[in-house]
Amino acid sequence: MSKRLNRPLPLGTPAGVEVLTKILTQGPIPRVQIARRTGLSQAAVTKAVAPLIEAGFVTDQQALAEDAAEGRPELGIGRPVSPLTVVADSVSVIGLKVTPTDLIGVTTDFKAGILAVRHQQLTDLSAATVIEQLASLATELMDTLDDEADPSGPLIGIGVAVSGDVDTLHGVVRDSPFMGWRDVPVATPLGEKLRVPVVVSNDVRALTVTEHWFGVGVDADSFAVVTIGSGVGCGLYVNGEVVSGAHGVSGELGHLPLAPGDLVCTCGRRGCVETVASSDAILARVRETTGQPELDLSGAIELARAGDAHAREAFDRAGEVIGSALAAMVNLVGPELVVIAGEGVADYDLYDQRMRQAFAKHAFGAAGDCTLMLRSHTFDDWARGAAATVIRSYVRGEPPLQR
Amino acid sequence: MSKRLNRPLPLGTPAGVEVLTKILTQGPIPRVQIARRTGLSQAAVTKAVAPLIEAGFVTDQQALAEDAAEGRPELGIGRPVSPLTVVADSVSVIGLKVTPTDLIGVTTDFKAGILAVRHQQLTDLSAATVIEQLASLATELMDTLDDEADPSGPLIGIGVAVSGDVDTLHGVVRDSPFMGWRDVPVATPLGEKLRVPVVVSNDVRALTVTEHWFGVGVDADSFAVVTIGSGVGCGLYVNGEVVSGAHGVSGELGHLPLAPGDLVCTCGRRGCVETVASSDAILARVRETTGQPELDLSGAIELARAGDAHAREAFDRAGEVIGSALAAMVNLVGPELVVIAGEGVADYDLYDQRMRQAFAKHAFGAAGDCTLMLRSHTFDDWARGAAATVIRSYVRGEPPLQR
Repeated sequence: MSKRLNRPLPLGTPAGVEVLTKILTQGPIPRVQIARRTGLSQAAVTKAVAPLIEAGFVTDQQALAEDAAEGRPELGIGRPVSPLTVVADSVSVIGLKVTPTDLIGVTTDFKAGILAVRHQQLTDLSAATVIEQLASLATELMDTLDDEADPSGPLIGIGVAVSGDVDTLHGVVRDSPFMGWRDVPVATPLGEKLRVPVVVSNDVRALTVTEHWFGVGVDADSFAVVTIGSGVGCGLYVNGEVVSGAHGVSGELGHLPLAPGDLVCTCGRRGCVETVASSDAILARVRETTGQPELDLSGAIELARAGDAHAREAFDRAGEVIGSALAAMVNLVGPELVVIAGEGVADYDLYDQRMRQAFAKHAFGAAGDCTLMLRSHTFDDWARGAAATVIRSYVRGEPPLQR
Repeated sequence: MSKRLNRPLPLGTPAGVEVLTKILTQGPIPRVQIARRTGLSQAAVTKAVAPLIEAGFVTDQQALAEDAAEGRPELGIGRPVSPLTVVADSVSVIGLKVTPTDLIGVTTDFKAGILAVRHQQLTDLSAATVIEQLASLATELMDTLDDEADPSGPLIGIGVAVSGDVDTLHGVVRDSPFMGWRDVPVATPLGEKLRVPVVVSNDVRALTVTEHWFGVGVDADSFAVVTIGSGVGCGLYVNGEVVSGAHGVSGELGHLPLAPGDLVCTCGRRGCVETVASSDAILARVRETTGQPELDLSGAIELARAGDAHAREAFDRAGEVIGSALAAMVNLVGPELVVIAGEGVADYDLYDQRMRQAFAKHAFGAAGDCTLMLRSHTFDDWARGAAATVIRSYVRGEPPLQR
């Protein structure tokens, strides 16, 4: 249990947070580069870095070793530049993703690198049962961290990702149509059971945090992560930060009113994108038009790939609405890059073309010049996103991980 | 002409820009407050302020005098706190708004306070003619600044606001459906004629800059400005900055594909919000359904207010689509506050109710908790927005006003 002790970061000032963030997301990085990118003096960078090295969170040794191993040329003659990098195994994190059928859990290191993966089927969707199962999955993952042969660091927190309207500050799922949850407290009961800080987030927001800190966001000035699958979601990164919404809601691409108004969504509203573009909606449409009520999703995909006109139409319709939704989003926000992810990426071939046509038809002017990028995606990525939210709260000292 | 000389701001560092921005947008403000809000040391604030006071851009005298005049209690006993404020007449700015029928021009002081207003009818929409008329309007406004009885400061630049896709960096209007312009350079020809730096912006973006620096944005963490009238536009302020779009396009609320797909927009696309919600679209619909092809907009408004069912239907339809568009925007971006402005605010009573109904129907969860705020609005406000973009470029030292 000693490994689960709280391990506070020695960060006294906002400058310290900024410096550690740069090392974490852009390392290996020399001190002079950090100074240049943050606008801090070199002396201030050195002052912020010293206690982090002292406490074992950051090193200037490992990076050199890595560079040498990769055969990079030395960066200068004389005094070595000693780029800084975080010590990956200085802390561990658990990330859990809740879906209506399964729980997916991962342990990661400080750099959100996945160490272990565990899945668990959900028996029912009542909040009490799911929280019980989350606790048992987390315990199982903690055991992997306690393994003596394993060099993983102390556990700093557990992230939980759920689709829908999530109040991260209070750790409450306010409205998750997929789970059938309204105002379900998650952070407090789970945290009390496990005696570890718990961060609850909207799942797509969590994925966006991962891209921001450990993915495309390191290089892009603005981007959107669009997830297609059992739901359609969107995370936005603009003006140096993930968009969180004044009331905790943003990026609800699946609930733009772009579909026919007679279709009722799982959220209760009419005409939402998800009424034709979610995998359930596609499957329902294929079952209806082909007259095969027993089909499952892979059966529907197979039919469409085999050229069945009815099955194809359902995917076409989904592609059309997804393309319009993408256009609506870029017309409003104008990101540099749109990353398309989610489990729906597996049948991307079936709606790609229609999606791009609809996008081109409705994207306004130069907003359509953004790059559309396909990202292969597993369920584990969702859980990794949940872990990334913990890492971010830890570095920033935000609740429930305040210093 | 001496008044038109360039007057560089003595701002050596990013900290200086931050300090002046706080004084400009939040003044009168004491040094200690600036330090608290920027995270700078009091010494750094004092160091940044000294040359600004020395050069006459900032004062700690005027604020005291104003406070005394307004009868505010003194802020403490002993050493006076001396809140800082910018010297409004230390510089002047010209803002010009281009519409398909008129040019509207204003002169403002450093705080974007309007000093003089001039309108000019446009004779034709060719780029050459419009630029000629912009030059003549600007010259007329410059003459008001040269007035000997007028205490206005030297002119730092001219802002031009145009609807559509505008490339501010290069001063080019890339695509303005209302003007029928494509790739029209404005900043260079106008700047060369007048020998003054010219900043060209999307008109709604310019209005959002004004709200950010001199309006609601001073208090709100995030907001949207939605303009309703001859077009439907939207400016967004999120994560500490106005959203500009990676390729210069954002906030194109009027071109979300939320209207019936058989309607063709002035931009050439189908199903844009503006096909039913622009004032031209409303008028066309009323003319068609009432069989009165000679009606003008005020006639249509009169008919609707008198209860004519056909006329009312056109406004209902507009309200419905505007409400859906507002919901789409808040579902994606989740702002704290939505300011509704534009000349369409004058007939707001005709679509208000339908708009709010559609908004409530499609706003997702807590995203709908944002405040909807009506802002009375004149054409002069658009021109003031153009002036605000110049003030911002001047303070930040951005092209074409770099130091």
